[in-house]
Amino acid sequence: MKPSHIEHLGIAVAKLDDVIPFYEKLLGTKCYSIEEVADQKVRTAFLKVGQTKIELLEPTSEDSPIAKYLEKNPRGGVHHVAYCVENVQEALDEAAAEGWQLIDKAPRKGAEGLNIAFLHPKSTHGVLTELCEYPK
Amino acid sequence: MKPSHIEHLGIAVAKLDDVIPFYEKLLGTKCYSIEEVADQKVRTAFLKVGQTKIELLEPTSEDSPIAKYLEKNPRGGVHHVAYCVENVQEALDEAAAEGWQLIDKAPRKGAEGLNIAFLHPKSTHGVLTELCEYPK
Repeated sequence: MKPSHIEHLGIAVAKLDDVIPFYEKLLGTKCYSIEEVADQKVRTAFLKVGQTKIELLEPTSEDSPIAKYLEKNPRGGVHHVAYCVENVQEALDEAAAEGWQLIDKAPRKGAEGLNIAFLHPKSTHGVLTELCEYPK
Repeated sequence: MKPSHIEHLGIAVAKLDDVIPFYEKLLGTKCYSIEEVADQKVRTAFLKVGQTKIELLEPTSEDSPIAKYLEKNPRGGVHHVAYCVENVQEALDEAAAEGWQLIDKAPRKGAEGLNIAFLHPKSTHGVLTELCEYPK
């Protein structure tokens, strides 16, 4: 596969409202969208820097993957790295052919309507890695 | 401040040789440089995706910051996020004026000859944050 760029960094935070002002100052830009992704039990806030979005992720439930991340990393941190590919299904097929462990065997809908799929950190040397594709 | 893009992601790994092949396949590109940064007690390998470099970091000493990171995160993970700014000293001055804790009060030389400085994760909600500037 050949991703074009890092589409976003998913950053786990306890409370969006506590962290958005920091990133607005750091990046010199306003948060342009807040969205709830029920499927992943998160509320997300987006800011843009160059080609990449900073996606701040606040858990909406105790069994959210982000809540689990925050148990281990109470201050927050980089939860996942998402690469933009032309076709997620083709990229997943390539990943499977490499023997990489997939969390998602087929693309599903993520924030902002993107088609997304995750590779398992066991196969990606500890970095939870997402592949995503803009809807056609 | 107003960074133009994410200059690189610093990813901690136990052994460069074990991880470079994975990123070469994931990104569809070859590692273009390996460099030792004595100051930070690391060996780094670089790959490019869009505007951003993936900087794999292997500790060269047990008291390397990367060795300490790997003690807590044995599989590896995202160690820091580096934003490209026009002028690191000005960005540090702005950060200090915001009351953010600085690791470096003045820029120093990093990998690839960049002028760099780190903000402390206590002030950045858990993400070790680097500011960097291309040498003039």
